[in-house]
Amino acid sequence: MKKLINDPFDVVDEAVEGFVAAYSDIVALHAPRVVARRVPARDKVGIVVGGGSGHEPAFLGYVGEGLADAAAIGNVFASPSADIVLSSIRAANHGRGVILLYGNYAGDVLNFGLAAHLAETEGIVVRELRVSDDVASAPPDERSKRRGIAGDTIVFKCAGAAAEAGSSLDGVLAVATKANDATRSIGVALSACEVPGSGRPTFELADDEMEIGMGVHGEPGMRRGKLQTADVIGETLVAAIVADMPGGHGTDVALLINGLGATSTIDQYVLYRAARRSLESHAFKIIRSYVGEYVTSLEMAGASVTVTLLDDDLRRLLDAPSHAVRSVP
Amino acid sequence: MKKLINDPFDVVDEAVEGFVAAYSDIVALHAPRVVARRVPARDKVGIVVGGGSGHEPAFLGYVGEGLADAAAIGNVFASPSADIVLSSIRAANHGRGVILLYGNYAGDVLNFGLAAHLAETEGIVVRELRVSDDVASAPPDERSKRRGIAGDTIVFKCAGAAAEAGSSLDGVLAVATKANDATRSIGVALSACEVPGSGRPTFELADDEMEIGMGVHGEPGMRRGKLQTADVIGETLVAAIVADMPGGHGTDVALLINGLGATSTIDQYVLYRAARRSLESHAFKIIRSYVGEYVTSLEMAGASVTVTLLDDDLRRLLDAPSHAVRSVP
Repeated sequence: MKKLINDPFDVVDEAVEGFVAAYSDIVALHAPRVVARRVPARDKVGIVVGGGSGHEPAFLGYVGEGLADAAAIGNVFASPSADIVLSSIRAANHGRGVILLYGNYAGDVLNFGLAAHLAETEGIVVRELRVSDDVASAPPDERSKRRGIAGDTIVFKCAGAAAEAGSSLDGVLAVATKANDATRSIGVALSACEVPGSGRPTFELADDEMEIGMGVHGEPGMRRGKLQTADVIGETLVAAIVADMPGGHGTDVALLINGLGATSTIDQYVLYRAARRSLESHAFKIIRSYVGEYVTSLEMAGASVTVTLLDDDLRRLLDAPSHAVRSVP
Repeated sequence: MKKLINDPFDVVDEAVEGFVAAYSDIVALHAPRVVARRVPARDKVGIVVGGGSGHEPAFLGYVGEGLADAAAIGNVFASPSADIVLSSIRAANHGRGVILLYGNYAGDVLNFGLAAHLAETEGIVVRELRVSDDVASAPPDERSKRRGIAGDTIVFKCAGAAAEAGSSLDGVLAVATKANDATRSIGVALSACEVPGSGRPTFELADDEMEIGMGVHGEPGMRRGKLQTADVIGETLVAAIVADMPGGHGTDVALLINGLGATSTIDQYVLYRAARRSLESHAFKIIRSYVGEYVTSLEMAGASVTVTLLDDDLRRLLDAPSHAVRSVP
């Protein structure tokens, strides 16, 4: 796969350098691999997001007013170290506690957890919420084992808005938990990506194949098969989400289509149409929509569908203003 | 190339349907292939943008407050018909004249020109500005033959802001002309895209090759060669722009990195860093930055660099608020 990079081992630091230089009105480099708001907030709950690189605009694109205070940045597809997370917690700490929002992956659980422990010894009160929206990654009775994918965006935004509005630490945790519980996602991969320097794709898919449920690091999905039309794929993804939704029928939802990297924007609109029609056929009412790249997998081709059950509170939080490189909405 | 579509011949209409459904708070379908603001503006110069599909978020993503009033949408990589442009002009007409902003391509010149003529017979005063920022597409003494690529974004935004602020038709034309004259771009292609239904890529590039200066429809560039590092590519692209810039050294500029479709966001940040360093070595001062997908080429891999010389007027126009699906900034 052809990349626009220099030495593969410098990709992350060079990208962060470029990002911070481009958006110096919004962010600043607080420490190596720690991107924070240029002007720190005051007297609010701090929000740290983070995870491996290769998912841009996640996670650094979500740093800004109404969203996160800091992002902890790991190597490509690898958790940030506990040191980096701890620095991020310090950057995000404004005396009212800090919440860590990250996808539910073993490395992240370990390092964010360790950093939380270290921060507590410094007197910072820390809470954690592991995003676990990927229905393909574990059955409903093992929801706590599920991975986090594009649902990150919804959880970050709702929690960020609550923190900006002055909620307490436990209030923000409750919002993040509620947003995560209300959110389901599933993806489809059409082709692999390549971790810089690895010299090989993360997986192999035949020219006429797709894989339903593949994770954003190439984790195995639920089913591999012949590439189908956008309408069939949209139906398949929505059906998997709807089957997993608590209650649901007749309710208001947000629908987010997330491009994984190489799938064109025009195709994302076609998939949005398919997913929307399918959701409507299940009697859901789509009242908020987002189409674009939110949590990518380098240059993987494919996309994911995310659905969030909305009540007035979540809708209001999603609609709150935000000013980040990847503002939502 | 694998696509998330249904029948290739339905891609454009299905994508437009999806887009309009997703963003019904901002846009509405005024007529087939004509996307307009949901709430028409009043008492301002109308702005029509447009061109072929396959460049999303261009052109429909630029419809909204502070940007365009309507977008005329063609088939993939094909100009919209004069009928579609004429409908777009009517949608954008609020009694103070309409300006058409589009890339300088033969089909667009023909159809937008014809539509302008027809609109004039209806009593609508029309002006046209053909964006021509691609330095690779013709030498400096034939600048009027140059194609328009990601410089569209800069021209649309400056003209849109001027119109929103109440400028006259000739005032908006002057701003668009000034923004276009101040803007230079050049791209690099790493791999081809495929027009839906064509069954073959738009061009062939060997596994270790890149092409400097290739156009957004696969038009031949200036030079094909071995794929180089982001730093060398950034230097090469910036050098081509700087050599073509009127005056320039020591002045303020905007720097825009445009991903063509399949190039990952992290790579775009790495290229931004390279281009920024190179521009700084030529004594330019980068005061505004934009990194992302603005004018794509389906799922082509590669990116382009756009530089705009900024004075206070253009800077103020670029900074003006806008509310479109692809707001700038």
